[in-house]
Amino acid sequence: MNKIQNKGWKRKLHEIIYEADTPEGKLFDVVLLIAILASILLVMLESIKSFDNKYHDLLNISEWIITILFSIEYIARIITVKKPIKYIFSFYGIIDFLSTIPKYISLLVGGLHALAALRALRLLRVFRILKLARYLGASNNLINALKASKAKISVFLFAVVIVAIILGTIMYMIEGEENGFTNIPKSVYWCIVTLTTVGFGDIAPQTPLGQFIASLVMVLGYGIIAVPTGIVSAEYTNQTKTDKETKNTNVHLNTQACTNCSAENHKDDAEFCYHCGHKLNHG
Amino acid sequence: MNKIQNKGWKRKLHEIIYEADTPEGKLFDVVLLIAILASILLVMLESIKSFDNKYHDLLNISEWIITILFSIEYIARIITVKKPIKYIFSFYGIIDFLSTIPKYISLLVGGLHALAALRALRLLRVFRILKLARYLGASNNLINALKASKAKISVFLFAVVIVAIILGTIMYMIEGEENGFTNIPKSVYWCIVTLTTVGFGDIAPQTPLGQFIASLVMVLGYGIIAVPTGIVSAEYTNQTKTDKETKNTNVHLNTQACTNCSAENHKDDAEFCYHCGHKLNHG
Amino acid sequence: MNKIQNKGWKRKLHEIIYEADTPEGKLFDVVLLIAILASILLVMLESIKSFDNKYHDLLNISEWIITILFSIEYIARIITVKKPIKYIFSFYGIIDFLSTIPKYISLLVGGLHALAALRALRLLRVFRILKLARYLGASNNLINALKASKAKISVFLFAVVIVAIILGTIMYMIEGEENGFTNIPKSVYWCIVTLTTVGFGDIAPQTPLGQFIASLVMVLGYGIIAVPTGIVSAEYTNQTKTDKETKNTNVHLNTQACTNCSAENHKDDAEFCYHCGHKLNHG
Amino acid sequence: MNKIQNKGWKRKLHEIIYEADTPEGKLFDVVLLIAILASILLVMLESIKSFDNKYHDLLNISEWIITILFSIEYIARIITVKKPIKYIFSFYGIIDFLSTIPKYISLLVGGLHALAALRALRLLRVFRILKLARYLGASNNLINALKASKAKISVFLFAVVIVAIILGTIMYMIEGEENGFTNIPKSVYWCIVTLTTVGFGDIAPQTPLGQFIASLVMVLGYGIIAVPTGIVSAEYTNQTKTDKETKNTNVHLNTQACTNCSAENHKDDAEFCYHCGHKLNHG
Repeated sequence: MNKIQNKGWKRKLHEIIYEADTPEGKLFDVVLLIAILASILLVMLESIKSFDNKYHDLLNISEWIITILFSIEYIARIITVKKPIKYIFSFYGIIDFLSTIPKYISLLVGGLHALAALRALRLLRVFRILKLARYLGASNNLINALKASKAKISVFLFAVVIVAIILGTIMYMIEGEENGFTNIPKSVYWCIVTLTTVGFGDIAPQTPLGQFIASLVMVLGYGIIAVPTGIVSAEYTNQTKTDKETKNTNVHLNTQACTNCSAENHKDDAEFCYHCGHKLNHG
Repeated sequence: MNKIQNKGWKRKLHEIIYEADTPEGKLFDVVLLIAILASILLVMLESIKSFDNKYHDLLNISEWIITILFSIEYIARIITVKKPIKYIFSFYGIIDFLSTIPKYISLLVGGLHALAALRALRLLRVFRILKLARYLGASNNLINALKASKAKISVFLFAVVIVAIILGTIMYMIEGEENGFTNIPKSVYWCIVTLTTVGFGDIAPQTPLGQFIASLVMVLGYGIIAVPTGIVSAEYTNQTKTDKETKNTNVHLNTQACTNCSAENHKDDAEFCYHCGHKLNHG
Repeated sequence: MNKIQNKGWKRKLHEIIYEADTPEGKLFDVVLLIAILASILLVMLESIKSFDNKYHDLLNISEWIITILFSIEYIARIITVKKPIKYIFSFYGIIDFLSTIPKYISLLVGGLHALAALRALRLLRVFRILKLARYLGASNNLINALKASKAKISVFLFAVVIVAIILGTIMYMIEGEENGFTNIPKSVYWCIVTLTTVGFGDIAPQTPLGQFIASLVMVLGYGIIAVPTGIVSAEYTNQTKTDKETKNTNVHLNTQACTNCSAENHKDDAEFCYHCGHKLNHG
Repeated sequence: MNKIQNKGWKRKLHEIIYEADTPEGKLFDVVLLIAILASILLVMLESIKSFDNKYHDLLNISEWIITILFSIEYIARIITVKKPIKYIFSFYGIIDFLSTIPKYISLLVGGLHALAALRALRLLRVFRILKLARYLGASNNLINALKASKAKISVFLFAVVIVAIILGTIMYMIEGEENGFTNIPKSVYWCIVTLTTVGFGDIAPQTPLGQFIASLVMVLGYGIIAVPTGIVSAEYTNQTKTDKETKNTNVHLNTQACTNCSAENHKDDAEFCYHCGHKLNHG
């Protein structure tokens, strides 16, 4: 991207909002990041009763400022993208909408406290700005390792759930309602708490037989934690090895996004979008 | 399996029940899977007192429908297999029987709540339908890794149990009955809870010396969790490597089961059962 | 070991007690194993008040029988070894003594309940009989891996303890006595409970700042559990690799023990003890 | 370092304090190590009310002795280094100052209990004396592995925190104040407690839906613990491999410190400091 000339304001705005290679784009990202973190802090502080009572007005005004800022950003995103429908129903499009709307609804309905917490979804927007995939750099063999082991870990977790249901039912039969295992779902919940070595202790076996079975469950949980760990570390070792062998030629990617379909991670010398074939705006 | 012709109804039924390569076989499996999951849901809902009081009749009728369905399936399985005795006393044969019988017994004896939970064993039947081994596909080097490390993990868990008994006895001597360590088995139970990092907190050391020993137990538990994990991941790495080297020629297996001995996982071009030598019914 | 002839009774007894290659030796080991497990069961049952009250006499008599059996065995071991002093002060010699003596002391002093639990040390004797090293077979690269990583794991655990002391002191300053962090040692104990992800919950931070620091401690603990696991699995992978490369020529070892110094694991064709040079009794 | 001659007392003192290759230097380190451990013991004992009441004077006097010893050492360190300012504002310089000053302040202000605990920072000084890096010997590929995986583990922990905030907010909406989830920060704290499998149990979900979400959180936590472990063990395996291939020529380092800039780990045959180029005092 050598020179920027003959661009309409839409194109310029698109570059500022969606990319981080120009100074304006970087500034926009930093401001947005601060706004998101500030808004999350606000959501947290609001939930603390004693704090909300003291500084209610301050919190309310700050929340309105941030909501309006996000609304402007949301509209700007829709205008500058060529296919707005696609953006609106994309993952981040929905997150952007859901994290902006609660304050407006509170104006109409009033006191909808539950909805307010939806604003915490704003945190997911952080991932877009940070463009984490880029920061991770060459470490995408971690993601490959996770993808490669996804099927096996799913089967493993599925087996864990079945074991939890069967052992939970057995514990329900042994301990019964008088010891806190009031029904099978609760008993299964206890079993997952124990198998994963969390161990809250809100429910704990009281009968000798129950404690014996619980010991087996714990030793089992202790033994099987080795399985996902083993899979991931083995797959990851393989990934790094393959990586070395294929001499992973480090292609440099930039943060530019296609004005048509918003696809990212284009190569520095790309002339057209790899996703939709639209001309990229290299000045 | 090219054409299916000249088959008796028994042979056809056998194919539907035991195999999943024909449309009827697949349909049967899906219906059975839904029935099993529905019946597990019933068992769970029944155990919730408030729910059972409200919808007792509905639950009872649904349970009878499922029990009758399972009974028919059980009889059909016996009829279509050439050696019914072998099936009846096989692992799945016993599971099928135990998960069907409780409802009939409740008719005779009445109010045998404890037995009712036996029906949760139905969940084990899921494994048969899903034929998980197949779904796991080429990932059977996970199973090989687990088999290879079985002996070592057993020895390891055996050592953990011995450590738990000795440390449990020491904690019983230090803390005594007044701090919840009422007897040695309970003390050993506490020790397993702690070693496996579950930590319910229903029993916790109160004396300074007891807390010091507990700290040692915990750091020990934290250190030794590395052992099974290390074994599995190393074995798994080895398995994947051997796999690559021997160019694991992917033999395609089908879900067909021998009409004589119910052995599964025959090769696609197999003419005779690899287990009992009986002719397979390739049309 | 082809023929056994011209042996004194001492030599024969030594072979029965210390080795497991002859039928008599195997029988002796099995009987001893049962006696040990029975005695551990006795110690456990005795500690359960309700059980002890009912069957006190039965437990007492059984305990005397086992104590006398172990006494005879202890004496036999001393007689048949050429250097009894060495045996008496060896690890297993002390265990054998400590696990036999409590019952005799109870005769003299009476009601020394605490000492009685010493008998749980008998469990350590199981390791001798099982000769676990042999059962582990070729898996002694696990032991090598543990030895290779011992130094690093020690340094790691040492660092964990220092972190626990410093963080414990900080938590003591933040939470104070009113929230259960009554003094620094107790606070350090809490910190170890948390770092190792055990989490009893008998002490838990109550102040927001305390909970924030606790969160950091937990995430830290969650992150550093990776270190020992990573070390062991990497070392173990290395061991298995070296193993393959050096073509580990499977030397067959027998369970014979030297009559002079009790060294074990002699090669099948060994003529002299590898430890003291004493002639081995190959008939 | 062959012969030591023609040195001023400053140079000699520098050698004793900062190095461990001469007998005097070793003696100094051992005395300092004992003083540090004794002072930590004092801080702990002081915090135990019952102990402090009984032996207050003894503890006070011991603390003064150690404080004066540390003060002398601190001044000696400043005098013998050529650039004292650099030392004073170095990591260990600040630790040395902070761990010495509290007793003097208590003289002026009196009863500043909170400050007293600062003395626990003395423990950090242990790392300087032990010069752990050296003890770890060739194992610095563990440190390399940790460095190599630092970025990935940071991203991972960052993602864990974001997941905790979002799930914490959801749990706050579901469980609400009546079940202990009084505000979002507390709810996030609970979520971290659960995700890291610590599970105190001071807060635990009570509603069925909350328990269901909690189960998901736990299984998630159980699954993702595999990630940092996998990374570290894979990186460590790589480090050890690279190590072997590059034939890591074992350079022998000594504990000598530059009199000018205090840089350590000079090679045995080094004539000048690798950091500031100052002449090293090889007699």
